[in-house]
Amino acid sequence: MAQQYFAQIYVTLRPSVLDPQGTAVQSGLKHMGYDNVEQVRIGKYVEITLTAESSEDAKSQLDLICDQLLANPVIENYRIDLKELSTSMNIGS
Amino acid sequence: MAQQYFAQIYVTLRPSVLDPQGTAVQSGLKHMGYDNVEQVRIGKYVEITLTAESSEDAKSQLDLICDQLLANPVIENYRIDLKELSTSMNIGS
Repeated sequence: MAQQYFAQIYVTLRPSVLDPQGTAVQSGLKHMGYDNVEQVRIGKYVEITLTAESSEDAKSQLDLICDQLLANPVIENYRIDLKELSTSMNIGS
Repeated sequence: MAQQYFAQIYVTLRPSVLDPQGTAVQSGLKHMGYDNVEQVRIGKYVEITLTAESSEDAKSQLDLICDQLLANPVIENYRIDLKELSTSMNIGS
């Protein structure tokens, strides 16, 4: 039976990669008076709702989606938090 | 004594606001064969390291930073997760 899942995906630059966008934000904050901000790193946050047979199935599909589309594995890392949505959905089962 | 904090900030579009970037990603995934993806919403993920007197102080500064720079309160929500970094830093205390 297909189950609905909600995934929260965090795509961040690898620590060794420079983050010009983060540096720009930090510099902007400094100009606004926030001298106590030491580092800013900016990433992407993606929420995906999908149906899958199992959480393992959902997880492996999301890994592929991240590698193929959402993240650039050369310079970015990603982390996936997966939640099963309540089984109020019986469509197609 | 100043303490170092690490904040993870999630900026998301309000549910009522259309997300063309998310729609584009969903359409891309469909073309790649992922027909089971039902919704994609894209937001920003920001990591900030800062020093503050207390976690309340850090939290109130981060709220201001979000309202003034990181998020557009008209169309976006934000959520802040704050962690105290281990007290290995005694500089300036």
